[in-house]
Amino acid sequence: MTPFPLPPGSTIGILGGGQLGRMLALAAARLGFDVAILTPEADSPAGRVAAHVIVAEYEEPGALKTLADLCQVITFEFENVPAGAVLELQRLGAEVAPNPRALAVAQDRLEEKTFLNQAGIPTVGFVPIDSEAELRAAFRRFGPPLLLKTRRGGYDGKGQIWVEKADDSAGALAALGQLPAIAETPADFRREVAIIAARGRDGEIALYPLTESHHENGILRRTTAPAAGPPRPHAEAERIAATLLTALNYVGVLGLELFERDDGRLLVNEFAPRVHNTGHWTLDGCGVDQFEQHIRAVAGWPLGPTAATHHVEMTNLLGEEALTWANLAREPETRVWLYGKRDHLPGRKMGHVNRLSALDSPRR
Amino acid sequence: MTPFPLPPGSTIGILGGGQLGRMLALAAARLGFDVAILTPEADSPAGRVAAHVIVAEYEEPGALKTLADLCQVITFEFENVPAGAVLELQRLGAEVAPNPRALAVAQDRLEEKTFLNQAGIPTVGFVPIDSEAELRAAFRRFGPPLLLKTRRGGYDGKGQIWVEKADDSAGALAALGQLPAIAETPADFRREVAIIAARGRDGEIALYPLTESHHENGILRRTTAPAAGPPRPHAEAERIAATLLTALNYVGVLGLELFERDDGRLLVNEFAPRVHNTGHWTLDGCGVDQFEQHIRAVAGWPLGPTAATHHVEMTNLLGEEALTWANLAREPETRVWLYGKRDHLPGRKMGHVNRLSALDSPRR
Repeated sequence: MTPFPLPPGSTIGILGGGQLGRMLALAAARLGFDVAILTPEADSPAGRVAAHVIVAEYEEPGALKTLADLCQVITFEFENVPAGAVLELQRLGAEVAPNPRALAVAQDRLEEKTFLNQAGIPTVGFVPIDSEAELRAAFRRFGPPLLLKTRRGGYDGKGQIWVEKADDSAGALAALGQLPAIAETPADFRREVAIIAARGRDGEIALYPLTESHHENGILRRTTAPAAGPPRPHAEAERIAATLLTALNYVGVLGLELFERDDGRLLVNEFAPRVHNTGHWTLDGCGVDQFEQHIRAVAGWPLGPTAATHHVEMTNLLGEEALTWANLAREPETRVWLYGKRDHLPGRKMGHVNRLSALDSPRR
Repeated sequence: MTPFPLPPGSTIGILGGGQLGRMLALAAARLGFDVAILTPEADSPAGRVAAHVIVAEYEEPGALKTLADLCQVITFEFENVPAGAVLELQRLGAEVAPNPRALAVAQDRLEEKTFLNQAGIPTVGFVPIDSEAELRAAFRRFGPPLLLKTRRGGYDGKGQIWVEKADDSAGALAALGQLPAIAETPADFRREVAIIAARGRDGEIALYPLTESHHENGILRRTTAPAAGPPRPHAEAERIAATLLTALNYVGVLGLELFERDDGRLLVNEFAPRVHNTGHWTLDGCGVDQFEQHIRAVAGWPLGPTAATHHVEMTNLLGEEALTWANLAREPETRVWLYGKRDHLPGRKMGHVNRLSALDSPRR
C-alpha cells in the first residue's frame, strides 16, 4: 500500500508524453517529486523534463511493470488511456488516480451523459445511435438539427458532425466510420464556460473560478478568466462540479465544459478526467495552478488556493503561430509557455500565452 | 556562430546539477528549450528534469565535447566552475554566458574587490595576505578585528574566520589551510541587502527590487522582499548593479550582496555570477523570476518585467526542516519549493518557501 501523503522524493508516473504531461512534470519537480513518463513517442515534450522515460505502447506489459515498480502513484494526461493498461497497473499493485471508473465514464460519451444525468446534472438531450434507423428515429423525436458524435475517441472537434435532416443520416454515419455514436440536441447557448475542479484524497474539494471559452473549428482558441457576468452561473457551476467530483469519488483535477443558456442556466457539455486546456490560465493567474493542484491531489497532499490573483486571457498558439515567440516575449504582461514540440503542424497546440491584467474585483 | 535570439527547441547547457540548475531547467522548459546538464553527480536534482545529462568531471574533455555539440549556449549554476572547462568549451566553439572574465573575477576575492573598486563601487577595506607577516601588517594598518578569507573557494560562510588580534595571525592562517587569502575590515552594517540584476545580449538591464537578507551561521536563512525603508538604498543599489553589469559586459543574472551602513550608504560584500539564493523570492513575487530571466538573457531574448507583485518572505529549508513539508503545504499563502535532494544533511539547502502577502505600496 502506498502511504499518503507521498513524501517528496517519491516518483509519480504519468501515462502520456504531451504538453499536459510536461506541465505536470514541471509542477511535480517544484514539489520535490521525480516523474516517470510512459509514452509511445520518442523525444516527447514530457519525456524531456522527466527523470524516467519509458518509450512503449501503453499496453506493453513490460513497460507497465517497469512503471508500476518505479512509481508510488500513477496518473494520466489524456482520457483515452486504454482501459487494459489501467487494469494491468492495478493488477500489479500500482495506485492509479483518478480512478478507472472516472476514466471509463469519460471515455464514452453515452456513459458520460448518462452518468451526469443520473447524478442530477443537466446535459443536452441525447440518444445512442448504432444504425441509420436509430438516427432517423432521433430526428422524429427531437427534430433537426442533431450533432452526431462517436461514443469513443475524438477531441478538438474531431469525431463529430452536424446532421441537418433525417435524409442525411446514412452519409453522416459513414463520415464517422460507422462507429457507435450518440446524437445530441443543440444546446442553444449564449456562451461556453468551463471550470477546473479538484478533489483530494480526503474528499476536500477546490474549485477555480468559472472561465469563458472561445472555440474556433472545434479547438479552444481563448480562455477569459475569471468569466465576466453575474455570480449565478459561477455558483451553479461550482455546485455541478462538486456534485460530479463526489459522484465519481474523484481524486485529481478535472476539467468541466459547460454551455450557458440564455436564461443563465448551465448544461454540462463534457468533462475531462485530467488537467485541461481551459485551466492553463491558472499557471499565471492563481497561487497554485491546475498542474500543481493535480500533483497535490494524487499525492495526497492538501489542496492549494484557487482564487484568481489576476485577470487572464489565455490564447493557444496553434501551428506556426508559435513562431511569433520573439514578439510575444517582448510583451511585459504576457507569460509565454512553449511545449517543445518539433513540428509546427497546422492546428497543433504548440504553446499558449497568458496575458495578465489587474482584477476588476475579487472573485470567489 | 550561434544565432540569437535562440529559437525554442534549442538546447541550453548548464554546468552544475544542483537546485539552481534544476530551477533554471524548469524555466527553460517553460520557454520550450531543452536542457543538457553536466555534473559529476549521478542522480542530481537538475539532471532529473533535463533532456540530457552528462555525468562527468567538469574538465573531462569528452564530456565537454558532448556538451558543446549538444548546446547552442552554455551557462553555469555555480561560480567555482574550473576556468579550464570554460576555456575548453570556447575552444570547441561553444557560446558561454556569462563570459569567462566575469567568472574569473568572481572566483577570486582579491580580484573581485579590486575590480569593484576600479569600477568606482565601494567595498570594505582589504589587503591580500600570503603570510603571517602580511596579516600582522594588516592589523597595524587597519586595527582589529579583521575578517580573514581564502581568495578562492568558500561559500555559505566556509573559508573565512574572524581574527581578533595580531597575535592570532598564525593560528588563523593555519585554520584556513595556509591558502592565499585576503583580510577585510569590518563592515559596520545595520543590515545586509541584496539585489538580483540581469543584463541581456543587447545591453538591456533589468533590476529586481532590493531585498533584505538574514544570515545564520553564514548561511542565508531568510529574504524579505522588497526591502523596507526609504528609497535611497534602492536607488544606490541599482546604480551599483548597473555599473557592475556594464563593467563586466555581463550577459545573464547576477546576485549582488551588500552591506547597508548606519548612514544608509552601501558597500558591496560580494557578487555571484549566476542566479542566487537571495532571488528565490522572485519565483512567486514577480512576473518573470530570476531563473526565466537568466534563460532569457543567455538565449538573447528580451528581458522580462521585474516589479514585485507581492511582498515575499523567503525562508530556506535546511536539513531536516524540509521534513515539515506536509505542514507547509497546508499554509494557503505559502509556496513550497523542494529540490529533490536525497539526504537531509544538517545545514544542507533542501528547499525553500515563499510566504506571500499583499504589497503595502508598489515598489519600482
